[in-house]
Amino acid sequence: MKLTILFGGASFEHEISIVSAITLKAKLSSFDLTFVFCDQDHKFYLVEASKMKANTFSKNQHKKMPELSIANGCFTQKSMFGATEYKGTVLNLIHGADGEDGTIAALLDFFSIKYIGPRIDASVFSYDKRYTKWLCSAKEIKSVKYELLSAKVHKDITIPYPVIIKPARLGSSIGVSIVKEESELDYALDTAFEFDTCLIVEPFLVGVKEYNVAGYMANAEIHCSIVEEPQKNEFLDFEKKYMDFSRSEHVLKADITPALEKKLIANFKKIYRSLFEGALIRCDFFVVDGEVYLNEINPIPGSMANYLFEDFQGSIEALANSLPHAKRVKVTYDYIHSLSSAKGK
Amino acid sequence: MKLTILFGGASFEHEISIVSAITLKAKLSSFDLTFVFCDQDHKFYLVEASKMKANTFSKNQHKKMPELSIANGCFTQKSMFGATEYKGTVLNLIHGADGEDGTIAALLDFFSIKYIGPRIDASVFSYDKRYTKWLCSAKEIKSVKYELLSAKVHKDITIPYPVIIKPARLGSSIGVSIVKEESELDYALDTAFEFDTCLIVEPFLVGVKEYNVAGYMANAEIHCSIVEEPQKNEFLDFEKKYMDFSRSEHVLKADITPALEKKLIANFKKIYRSLFEGALIRCDFFVVDGEVYLNEINPIPGSMANYLFEDFQGSIEALANSLPHAKRVKVTYDYIHSLSSAKGK
Repeated sequence: MKLTILFGGASFEHEISIVSAITLKAKLSSFDLTFVFCDQDHKFYLVEASKMKANTFSKNQHKKMPELSIANGCFTQKSMFGATEYKGTVLNLIHGADGEDGTIAALLDFFSIKYIGPRIDASVFSYDKRYTKWLCSAKEIKSVKYELLSAKVHKDITIPYPVIIKPARLGSSIGVSIVKEESELDYALDTAFEFDTCLIVEPFLVGVKEYNVAGYMANAEIHCSIVEEPQKNEFLDFEKKYMDFSRSEHVLKADITPALEKKLIANFKKIYRSLFEGALIRCDFFVVDGEVYLNEINPIPGSMANYLFEDFQGSIEALANSLPHAKRVKVTYDYIHSLSSAKGK
Repeated sequence: MKLTILFGGASFEHEISIVSAITLKAKLSSFDLTFVFCDQDHKFYLVEASKMKANTFSKNQHKKMPELSIANGCFTQKSMFGATEYKGTVLNLIHGADGEDGTIAALLDFFSIKYIGPRIDASVFSYDKRYTKWLCSAKEIKSVKYELLSAKVHKDITIPYPVIIKPARLGSSIGVSIVKEESELDYALDTAFEFDTCLIVEPFLVGVKEYNVAGYMANAEIHCSIVEEPQKNEFLDFEKKYMDFSRSEHVLKADITPALEKKLIANFKKIYRSLFEGALIRCDFFVVDGEVYLNEINPIPGSMANYLFEDFQGSIEALANSLPHAKRVKVTYDYIHSLSSAKGK
């Protein structure tokens, strides 16, 4: 099947999006893939599969490639003699800003391009960790208690140490610190405020178990991956996560009871349903005393969490064939006509 | 000052957006206005001020006008000899779908065009009435209790009659019915399900007082309009609201106690802050036994609620000069460089 991988973006996660795209080139090798790179200036470039290497972008070689514009139903390459259209379904693989904050979703919706990825509302509820908390509370899903911080005021933090400090709107552990005592707080706050004006403070749960589940909706059913217990070293910092985005080897199913597995899957489905249709997402959970807590939602997980699916190509194909139908409203001028005829009387 | 009025959209409220734009032409007469019409196929047209009449659009005359495309920082009109750029700040005046659901916000953000209007997240929380309820609960603002309905099942409604049935995602009273007894339910549900797959059911509060407040943030302060007690006839149906979108006469301040006025303003500010910056919004409240309940948020109110402001042109100018700064992330290739050099060792 035809699929356009859209990657890059003006995001702190720009580089890992490139790594994700390179990984997917290998993992979706039976597909007819087109690669569209969005640079930091929001220009689109058509990248030949053979040029899909990290250095292409870090050395600015994409600037020599054909520039594309977005148009109704496709990306187009204009030339003196007309335009070539790239019409395939898009896989939105832009991590972080642009890709996960609803911008790309809206752009593709506006231009009637079918895409795999979170819709505008799903993006808002997963991109901003404050809104993920609201989602949890509305859907009755447990999440770790938290405080918000919008200025560097120590006394506004009432959660006892150790705490974890995160920018509200970034993924991939960027700007995140574990703070064990107050003396470490200033540095952690300075780091996090570099990335966002609003921070989330949570208790750092020592020895907590972590489990990840990915899944997607196809043929009106939610299909879940295996449950993974991610390796961890306190928490994955950006560099480790970066490597993580190039993952392609299958992982082993977590060694958990069927009851816990069922609980994790049930939580995943509760989050997914009526919001994430069209996307393949990964939810990261904490388990404390047998209770499942949502840690975060990755609406465009690194390398699409391919390593969690037995038949990854089959999963993407099924999802691509079950995308939500964006209904375009048919405009009428009934009221204007009736007003005009009333005036004419 | 220069301002581009963007109106139309593929929305059930397409026609009232035209009416709003015509009204604003008169109310912002000291501005240097450009009119950009978005038709139902998401094509943009440049409309001469003298052609800003309802019949222009209902008679498809816009199709003869210059077509614009959206580009980095502006709308452009391409010709054989180059392109003319229209760079002014945009006032997003597309009511309903496209304008209020975050699509236009994302489009303007992506193309780095400054605009008056709700940002993506603010749009999501006001467009979908379910998410407005979540917002209320997170910000501790009272709202009327509700039930959700996704199928025509009478017994899923446990709120006693009379109830009000609304599509979750439409404004301007489209598809809304008051149901006094069960015999009227089928018709109301059929009507509402024509517009949305999810309905909101609320108790219909007989004899409740209604008050509207509009406002915007400028120079780091929220500026509120007078409080209005809207005329009502059970509730405004679409045709009456339609006329309402062309309102331009000043209204009288509601005859309420200073304490109630203070309470309404305080609720408005609580809703606005940290979410609606960049927009001029109108909040519609109910008052029951002295308690204030949010009914709905209009993030792009009809004719921008000009009739509620003493100095409407001054308000729009102040807002246009205080728009949120969309920070574009600066991309680096540090990790790719460090990986490449590590490989080279």
